[in-house]
Amino acid sequence: AKLWGGRFEKPVTEAVTKFSESVSYDKRLYSQDLKGSRAHCKMLAAQGLMTDSDRDTILKGLDEIEARIERGDFTWRADREDVHMNVEAALIELVGEPAKKLHTARSRNDQVITDVRLWCRDAIDGLLERIQTLQVALVRLAIANQDLVVPGYTHMQRAQPILVPHLLLAYVEQLDRDAGRLRDCRSRLNFSSLGSCALAGTGLPIDRHMTAKELGFSGPLRNSVDGVMDRDFLLELLSANAIIGVHLSRLAEEWVLYASEEFGFITPSDAVSTGSSIMPQKKNPDPMELVRGKSARIIGSLTTVLVLCKGLPSAYNRDLQEDKEPLFDSVETVQGILEVTAEFADNVTFNADRLAKSLPAGHLDATTLADYLVKKGMPFRTSHDVVGRAVAVAVKEKIELQDLTLEQFRALDPIFEEDVYGYLGVTNSVSKFISYGSTGAERVAEQLEYWKERLSQ
Amino acid sequence: AKLWGGRFEKPVTEAVTKFSESVSYDKRLYSQDLKGSRAHCKMLAAQGLMTDSDRDTILKGLDEIEARIERGDFTWRADREDVHMNVEAALIELVGEPAKKLHTARSRNDQVITDVRLWCRDAIDGLLERIQTLQVALVRLAIANQDLVVPGYTHMQRAQPILVPHLLLAYVEQLDRDAGRLRDCRSRLNFSSLGSCALAGTGLPIDRHMTAKELGFSGPLRNSVDGVMDRDFLLELLSANAIIGVHLSRLAEEWVLYASEEFGFITPSDAVSTGSSIMPQKKNPDPMELVRGKSARIIGSLTTVLVLCKGLPSAYNRDLQEDKEPLFDSVETVQGILEVTAEFADNVTFNADRLAKSLPAGHLDATTLADYLVKKGMPFRTSHDVVGRAVAVAVKEKIELQDLTLEQFRALDPIFEEDVYGYLGVTNSVSKFISYGSTGAERVAEQLEYWKERLSQ
Amino acid sequence: AKLWGGRFEKPVTEAVTKFSESVSYDKRLYSQDLKGSRAHCKMLAAQGLMTDSDRDTILKGLDEIEARIERGDFTWRADREDVHMNVEAALIELVGEPAKKLHTARSRNDQVITDVRLWCRDAIDGLLERIQTLQVALVRLAIANQDLVVPGYTHMQRAQPILVPHLLLAYVEQLDRDAGRLRDCRSRLNFSSLGSCALAGTGLPIDRHMTAKELGFSGPLRNSVDGVMDRDFLLELLSANAIIGVHLSRLAEEWVLYASEEFGFITPSDAVSTGSSIMPQKKNPDPMELVRGKSARIIGSLTTVLVLCKGLPSAYNRDLQEDKEPLFDSVETVQGILEVTAEFADNVTFNADRLAKSLPAGHLDATTLADYLVKKGMPFRTSHDVVGRAVAVAVKEKIELQDLTLEQFRALDPIFEEDVYGYLGVTNSVSKFISYGSTGAERVAEQLEYWKERLSQ
Amino acid sequence: AKLWGGRFEKPVTEAVTKFSESVSYDKRLYSQDLKGSRAHCKMLAAQGLMTDSDRDTILKGLDEIEARIERGDFTWRADREDVHMNVEAALIELVGEPAKKLHTARSRNDQVITDVRLWCRDAIDGLLERIQTLQVALVRLAIANQDLVVPGYTHMQRAQPILVPHLLLAYVEQLDRDAGRLRDCRSRLNFSSLGSCALAGTGLPIDRHMTAKELGFSGPLRNSVDGVMDRDFLLELLSANAIIGVHLSRLAEEWVLYASEEFGFITPSDAVSTGSSIMPQKKNPDPMELVRGKSARIIGSLTTVLVLCKGLPSAYNRDLQEDKEPLFDSVETVQGILEVTAEFADNVTFNADRLAKSLPAGHLDATTLADYLVKKGMPFRTSHDVVGRAVAVAVKEKIELQDLTLEQFRALDPIFEEDVYGYLGVTNSVSKFISYGSTGAERVAEQLEYWKERLSQ
Repeated sequence: AKLWGGRFEKPVTEAVTKFSESVSYDKRLYSQDLKGSRAHCKMLAAQGLMTDSDRDTILKGLDEIEARIERGDFTWRADREDVHMNVEAALIELVGEPAKKLHTARSRNDQVITDVRLWCRDAIDGLLERIQTLQVALVRLAIANQDLVVPGYTHMQRAQPILVPHLLLAYVEQLDRDAGRLRDCRSRLNFSSLGSCALAGTGLPIDRHMTAKELGFSGPLRNSVDGVMDRDFLLELLSANAIIGVHLSRLAEEWVLYASEEFGFITPSDAVSTGSSIMPQKKNPDPMELVRGKSARIIGSLTTVLVLCKGLPSAYNRDLQEDKEPLFDSVETVQGILEVTAEFADNVTFNADRLAKSLPAGHLDATTLADYLVKKGMPFRTSHDVVGRAVAVAVKEKIELQDLTLEQFRALDPIFEEDVYGYLGVTNSVSKFISYGSTGAERVAEQLEYWKERLSQ
Repeated sequence: AKLWGGRFEKPVTEAVTKFSESVSYDKRLYSQDLKGSRAHCKMLAAQGLMTDSDRDTILKGLDEIEARIERGDFTWRADREDVHMNVEAALIELVGEPAKKLHTARSRNDQVITDVRLWCRDAIDGLLERIQTLQVALVRLAIANQDLVVPGYTHMQRAQPILVPHLLLAYVEQLDRDAGRLRDCRSRLNFSSLGSCALAGTGLPIDRHMTAKELGFSGPLRNSVDGVMDRDFLLELLSANAIIGVHLSRLAEEWVLYASEEFGFITPSDAVSTGSSIMPQKKNPDPMELVRGKSARIIGSLTTVLVLCKGLPSAYNRDLQEDKEPLFDSVETVQGILEVTAEFADNVTFNADRLAKSLPAGHLDATTLADYLVKKGMPFRTSHDVVGRAVAVAVKEKIELQDLTLEQFRALDPIFEEDVYGYLGVTNSVSKFISYGSTGAERVAEQLEYWKERLSQ
Repeated sequence: AKLWGGRFEKPVTEAVTKFSESVSYDKRLYSQDLKGSRAHCKMLAAQGLMTDSDRDTILKGLDEIEARIERGDFTWRADREDVHMNVEAALIELVGEPAKKLHTARSRNDQVITDVRLWCRDAIDGLLERIQTLQVALVRLAIANQDLVVPGYTHMQRAQPILVPHLLLAYVEQLDRDAGRLRDCRSRLNFSSLGSCALAGTGLPIDRHMTAKELGFSGPLRNSVDGVMDRDFLLELLSANAIIGVHLSRLAEEWVLYASEEFGFITPSDAVSTGSSIMPQKKNPDPMELVRGKSARIIGSLTTVLVLCKGLPSAYNRDLQEDKEPLFDSVETVQGILEVTAEFADNVTFNADRLAKSLPAGHLDATTLADYLVKKGMPFRTSHDVVGRAVAVAVKEKIELQDLTLEQFRALDPIFEEDVYGYLGVTNSVSKFISYGSTGAERVAEQLEYWKERLSQ
Repeated sequence: AKLWGGRFEKPVTEAVTKFSESVSYDKRLYSQDLKGSRAHCKMLAAQGLMTDSDRDTILKGLDEIEARIERGDFTWRADREDVHMNVEAALIELVGEPAKKLHTARSRNDQVITDVRLWCRDAIDGLLERIQTLQVALVRLAIANQDLVVPGYTHMQRAQPILVPHLLLAYVEQLDRDAGRLRDCRSRLNFSSLGSCALAGTGLPIDRHMTAKELGFSGPLRNSVDGVMDRDFLLELLSANAIIGVHLSRLAEEWVLYASEEFGFITPSDAVSTGSSIMPQKKNPDPMELVRGKSARIIGSLTTVLVLCKGLPSAYNRDLQEDKEPLFDSVETVQGILEVTAEFADNVTFNADRLAKSLPAGHLDATTLADYLVKKGMPFRTSHDVVGRAVAVAVKEKIELQDLTLEQFRALDPIFEEDVYGYLGVTNSVSKFISYGSTGAERVAEQLEYWKERLSQ
């Protein structure tokens, strides 16, 4: 029988039972739920709301239930609705009368959100670890290709030469802010809802500070209505995840392009490639395509919970049950894309030869040439125009800028001198960068040092 | 071994295998996949691309595989990636050499989308049936409460009296357009991708019209690149579903409010209510809260696939694998909310007494009073102002409009006569409506007749 | 003074006025609003609810207001809230007493949605025209490059050779379904809400069929509550737009890649390119980047209105005012991306030389080779494996498949004969396609004929 | 002429110009753009990249341009694309040659994101102020109604009695976390992109630390590619805004319900209400409906920018131009809903009489009764069942729990004694709450004290 059936005369229909149950997915909160129940039980005993003997019986029962669950020997029942009722009903079956005291001064409303907070806390810790693993993989890849130059793009058009480590560190930086967001979210959510009960608190002499401490929370939330109604911490986590998804979708897009015949900058190993059922020659960078694709579901999960919460009256509404699947899916997906991207980074080779052959195209040295003119005293806007015309000549003649004769340069402006050739060609060009944060070799080496130290802490 | 392993030297890592597999969810396409394979196989034989004997061997093998799947005797293997490869590899194990001919002139690219089209077609048929069931339930509820008046609201403020069936039929109309959208989507998607192969078609003499006909499609798609790259039919279905979700979320909101202490207009039976783990008096209309909440995930699924497809280069990209889970989830969720709403409608009682007591409040007859003045020849804008001032008097005196004396009315404007009282009070007010589509009793009866006939076809 | 101020004693605050007004954006409905008012006015006179003389006065006044608006001589006032109240108040100022009869048997609730339906109908017509323009531009581009081969990609890896027109026609097909969705939406929305009044209809003897006919609607909606509460037609239009956005974002991505140094398949003319403020050599395909980017806001607008409507109680709620800005933005943006994509198509050149040089890479002929083996009687799955190993040899030796000697082929399988070379190389490969909808030259020519005829109707 | 036209031969078409321009909306960044230019200019002079005299000329010119803009005397030109080019071109016209040096070691890529960071910083400060204003308004409203009891709801069913200030403080808590999110976002975004130039940094000897300091940033970003490519700070701000939107949509829903005839708990003053064009009696809480509705567009804006950034290759792509309108709209909308909600709070009266009459319904004291039994030593689960049956009796007899006789209670369980009546009735019930964060009068008073102090700092 239901644990809440006192005033009910008829059972709910099977269709409604099936539609309403959450145990099929919220059972994954069992560990957090048991942790919360243990803390709650100890507190009830400490406050005289149950005897020490009842407490010990319950704690032993909870241990037994955990053991059964973990060895696959626990029957989850849909008619018991959710993880909380399944555990409580099983406990009553297991240890009898004392178990009926466990739900004193507690409601599923505060219980579930306590479970979810604990789950999110663990989830964030797992995500932070995976972020660091990926950062390490990227730095390792950066070090392995420290002197390699790739074309830098804007608008997918060749822009300026950049060092491979410089590009990879851009993603390390992004991941660093991602970690910061997760840490901020963790601090903000790490407060205890337990003891908010249904929504108003309780008249029983509970000690919310004790349970909060027992569960590793910074303290209890200050308002019981807030304690059961808000899901902002979950939205914050889903948002942070969505931003990670966007970051990795961009890296994925880049690597998918790099792995194409046309770019040919990287070769993923067989270990991270898949083939085609029809085209025998294909070797596809599927993991990164899936990373890009999975960013969509991370965004979708965020959307779901925003829509879910929008316009709900206070305090608890059953709609909120629907917050869990998108949460679980988002966290799992982000775990997956972080892991697989790191694995891909470990299994990718930059093709130095192909890059070397590719670099002359696209006038990557044009801006360096404009800077040359600026150093000679020409206003930048004028130099931009002069170089623009030099590029037009080169395009017309299908040559590179360094192939223009000094006469051709001087025909554009007499300011050019022989030393211009020290600024042309990709090798010269990339060597000229010096500003803080730029792609200059020394600057990049400094940054690599910084990250090596940061990540080895 | 993989079916595509010819040029590969190393196996993919376990993490990538787990990350990339889709068989854990696309196995639910098995029936469509087998159907497609049968049609393809027959066509290959008819076109001389395999012998009749090979065809028969394969068809028998496919039947055996279907039987095994349906009796739970088939091992789905993640290392075989997806439903297609699982079936094909099992078929090769089962019948040997002939099975290796089945994938002739076919790619997973066109195979999967053919499966999905077949699945969507079935899904739409199932949704259309459930829409009709819900319409019938609403019409039945309307008939059972044909003469009952509820306050009509705008801005959640009492506006005008309306008949219960009038309100319920508004949702029947919305569901009717929902069905129309689904039917249009079905027609548009009912074309065959099969034979598009990887993306370019094939040089083998296949007959795409034959497979299209065999599978019940209107014909083959005209362009093979389009055939493998587009998911617009899926987006169209997800959009239609999202609109259904929005419609039912509004009905759900209304019924949740109606079931509250404050409104008290309806009482759901115990069969569709649930209780509280802490508050013994609670009887909650959870199914409708979940209907409202689940609209969020339907919207989220649409968002996911829109984001997924955005900016993908042609033709097939692995990202597209991610289209299936949101599709399945959206369809299942919409099935669920349609069913449960119908069940709720069958288990709800309108509280005539409570409604009768409630109706006098809120000056629901004010617009009818304004219409009275219009009939007397007063311009509407003036009558609106006069009645506005009459309401101000009633509010001040805490009485109803029908309690104002004729003197009080005439003090506002001498146009009022004794017959004004025939327009006041909710019963008088609601009886006055006559326009097509209005809440007038005759109009509503006509509409009920219309729907009874439509829905019994 | 407000037109609804009868029972109010204090004016609303300035902040609320500013926050609540919609005239700053809904004034763009003025033409539809006037059209609706004219039809309503004629009907009121025909039904004896105003005199013919009042009708003529009002119609003349509405013409004068339209003239003033169109010559920029009309003052839109935020304190009059919206387009409806601005027009009505101005009409009263202009023609006096008769104007006070115009709002008889009408509410802003049915008025606004009638305006929006009319606006959407026009908007769809405009979108359909632009879709056709883009289809024509794509077909023109296809004809201009009828024999040109490009690599076809899956997973951004070279897959099979395809004809340029074949690829372009894939988008023409997609646009065709887009147009179908818009037409279905147009049919479904083309019903009249007018006469639903606030939500319940009216007691005055109006003729809704007359106004519906006058305004070109298929008829009046059958239920007045439905008539004011639902926005599904708008969601359907926004969904159709979102799908168009996704389609064009994919074409945009493709063209941005094609315009890169690495692909180099197309060159956009200066007329559709822009430069860089710092890098003098840059020529960016910005319009297509913006087409890709703008798909985001089209999706965002759909999300907005879905979220907006979710969970609203019936019938009209002020929230719904927020439906208009996303609607206008979505339609304008889709108009823009359709136009600019057509313009880009008109200004782009395929680089035949560059393509010719590029085609040998990537073993685009591998599937054709597998088909060759199938024609020789080898089961496809075996041929896939054999060709896979042939590709492995070619990759190792850095040669093309056609460079393998017959001995090398026969070492893989003795089935190979001299005629294999007729299947190798891109030209041979593409010439082999014959299936319906494939990239075979004849098939593509048929499709071009089909579209030329379709689009010239 | 364009400032980047050197290599171009033809101008862009008018349609593309109109489609691509951003000045119509990014001109609102002018103040940030000028600030950035001033800092950049001073740094260039300090580093010897321009003379002090050029610097002074430029600074004077920038002042003049600002003055012109602010007095409406500046012509924004769409053919100059954006705010940056408009300002630079105007500066060249104004002061001539020296102005051509301003763009030295700068690109629009780093310039625009610097502007946006500065704008966001200001925007956040403005939002934080408005959050505090709203918190103060809510606390003020709480104090004015310190002893008033409202029914607390879960599932929109009456649950337990709560004090009005307790409910209001729940929202104050939520706003507090909202402010925390904004502050974290502010810290994280407050780094300088300036000097990232196009994407690679520069070869000119600039001082990025100097410009960062001058602009109030914590320092320069460490990686120039990251500096121009990422929009995560913007996504973080949009997410924080979306959560605020969700919070206020819930408060709005609550107040809209409270203002209904059925609840009648609050009366908004005329100053924040609006009327109906057709129904003279209506007084609608429109501002709160719009607050609820506007949460949709805040969510939509977040979706837009997530979709926008998804899958973009590094570094700058023109798509990113589309980030600004959703940013501006989101911030403005959140400003608006914060302001208007505060104004509404200032203009709302709780109806003590109506509440008093309403409270007896719904058995709000049932949980307190269960707690009574727990205090008597009964296990909670048993007491829940006993009270459930007591409620069933009360429902059947249509009485309140306090109307049951002691005999009736004892028939359910002999544990009941005379003192049970001290726990029944709403007044008794609410007085029993004592737990930290509960609705007990002392607990709530403590919290009010806490907030009064916090908010007066």
